Amino acid sequence: MPRVLICYHSKTGNTEAMAYKIADGVREAGVDVDVKKVSETKQSDLVNYDGIVYGSPTYFGGCAGELKSFIDKCMPIYEQLEGKVGGAFTSSDAIAGGNETTIMQIVQVHMMCGMVVTGDTEGEPYGPVSIGKPDAEVEKNCVLYGKRIANLVKKLHG
Amino acid sequence: MPRVLICYHSKTGNTEAMAYKIADGVREAGVDVDVKKVSETKQSDLVNYDGIVYGSPTYFGGCAGELKSFIDKCMPIYEQLEGKVGGAFTSSDAIAGGNETTIMQIVQVHMMCGMVVTGDTEGEPYGPVSIGKPDAEVEKNCVLYGKRIANLVKKLHG
Amino acid sequence: MPRVLICYHSKTGNTEAMAYKIADGVREAGVDVDVKKVSETKQSDLVNYDGIVYGSPTYFGGCAGELKSFIDKCMPIYEQLEGKVGGAFTSSDAIAGGNETTIMQIVQVHMMCGMVVTGDTEGEPYGPVSIGKPDAEVEKNCVLYGKRIANLVKKLHG
Amino acid sequence: MPRVLICYHSKTGNTEAMAYKIADGVREAGVDVDVKKVSETKQSDLVNYDGIVYGSPTYFGGCAGELKSFIDKCMPIYEQLEGKVGGAFTSSDAIAGGNETTIMQIVQVHMMCGMVVTGDTEGEPYGPVSIGKPDAEVEKNCVLYGKRIANLVKKLHG
Repeated sequence: MPRVLICYHSKTGNTEAMAYKIADGVREAGVDVDVKKVSETKQSDLVNYDGIVYGSPTYFGGCAGELKSFIDKCMPIYEQLEGKVGGAFTSSDAIAGGNETTIMQIVQVHMMCGMVVTGDTEGEPYGPVSIGKPDAEVEKNCVLYGKRIANLVKKLHG
Repeated sequence: MPRVLICYHSKTGNTEAMAYKIADGVREAGVDVDVKKVSETKQSDLVNYDGIVYGSPTYFGGCAGELKSFIDKCMPIYEQLEGKVGGAFTSSDAIAGGNETTIMQIVQVHMMCGMVVTGDTEGEPYGPVSIGKPDAEVEKNCVLYGKRIANLVKKLHG
Repeated sequence: MPRVLICYHSKTGNTEAMAYKIADGVREAGVDVDVKKVSETKQSDLVNYDGIVYGSPTYFGGCAGELKSFIDKCMPIYEQLEGKVGGAFTSSDAIAGGNETTIMQIVQVHMMCGMVVTGDTEGEPYGPVSIGKPDAEVEKNCVLYGKRIANLVKKLHG
Repeated sequence: MPRVLICYHSKTGNTEAMAYKIADGVREAGVDVDVKKVSETKQSDLVNYDGIVYGSPTYFGGCAGELKSFIDKCMPIYEQLEGKVGGAFTSSDAIAGGNETTIMQIVQVHMMCGMVVTGDTEGEPYGPVSIGKPDAEVEKNCVLYGKRIANLVKKLHG
């Protein structure tokens, strides 16, 4: 049975709340899902999943240093991620901006690992975004995104 | 039977040569492929394919205006591209640079259309790149990339 | 006396309205300014200005093909733009997204031409953005941005 | 007298070697310069300089987590960086790629802090890049870049 990992860093709890909503969507689509903090994830864990979704606050137009430091240490295992499904989501406070570049940065990381990513014409094009605390619309986008990731995982690894 | 379109703009012939090599790879993997110049492609053609690969020279860090103008006019049909496989490749002359940002720009376009893109750990991470005339190494990368696109198309639309 | 060119493409009039507001700010700061449509600008015109600000709608996360085609044809003169001040602004409709990547694409073009660009901590960080018709807040940001560009032009070319 | 800080993270010594060559260029142009490791720099140090140049290896198409974590913690002081000159440089090993996106990520950070950045038509367009150990060509580019940064600092803060 295919499995998805949602691996996030969160300071205010906004990104964490998104992570659990995306997990709801993955589960609703019939795919196993684990939700883990970056600080509790080992690089070697990644190889056990068919889909990997990273979440981070947007700081200065990019993902948090905590997530980037985790990714940097994937060098020894990144070739084992080939063909897995990748995803990304982010939250930012009202003044920040930079959400799009944060998500596209994670998309680029996934592609360097040979992974498969999907856009969307209904929800957010690259992955869920929340400005501040996730509202009902963001929560809906997160669930839809979880389903979208799960459906792609089933097609490629089911 | 699934079909892939390779749609390119080329001035010096370098991008065109890459287009035909990628087509070889698609065909070798058992998927139908058409190769068309952007100037001879209609936006409505796109809906007839399961995979769409754009190629362009890199000018000032982005794709050629000719390709971007074609993409801009996809607004009426972009939602019909949902779920198709997308790809990108580029060539630049020795002094230019900007290849990575050109390819990532096209990746972003594909994602806005709800399409699926794949990275690679063996060849170029986001799509084939040639500095000047494609040499044997670039040609090999193009063929590998064509196969990679074709295999993803078969999994998702076979 | 230093001079700034605001060169824009506009379809709905939103980007055009922003262009004229930015021009107000440039003028208020005591710098000469011309506002021209891309279709009425020649590449050779650019060398006559100390600051060049490009404006475009955001289409699929990038500037309009009309502006990109103009930029592509700057290859013969781009080295003559060295040291000039560059700027960027964009408008998009409600559904589009991609404003940040559009502006950063133009920033990258300016840097390839050896030009100087400035961020901002008060208004928009990279350049004015309007979602739909510019409202009072956007208009204020445009005027502030015009002043910011003009002040940098005066310091570097006054 | 204007002062420039070159603040870098380096693992193999390649980025560090670039940092000291850029410092040579700054000094040759008659501007004071300090070279510091990210791990030995405090965010509050930044406000004492007129120019700030960040250097990092390229890991997965972005700057190292160590540098990003430092930048993330600049939130309390970023508005005090307004108007300073910013710069960026990077090194990567042969297989990596992603240099351009690393530098453009740092450029975006500088712009969010209201800082001024400059491109170049002679050396590297956005900032010095080394593939592996800096060779004579890269060293020359680093010295030229240091002079370029210093000259802009003198014009804006001399």
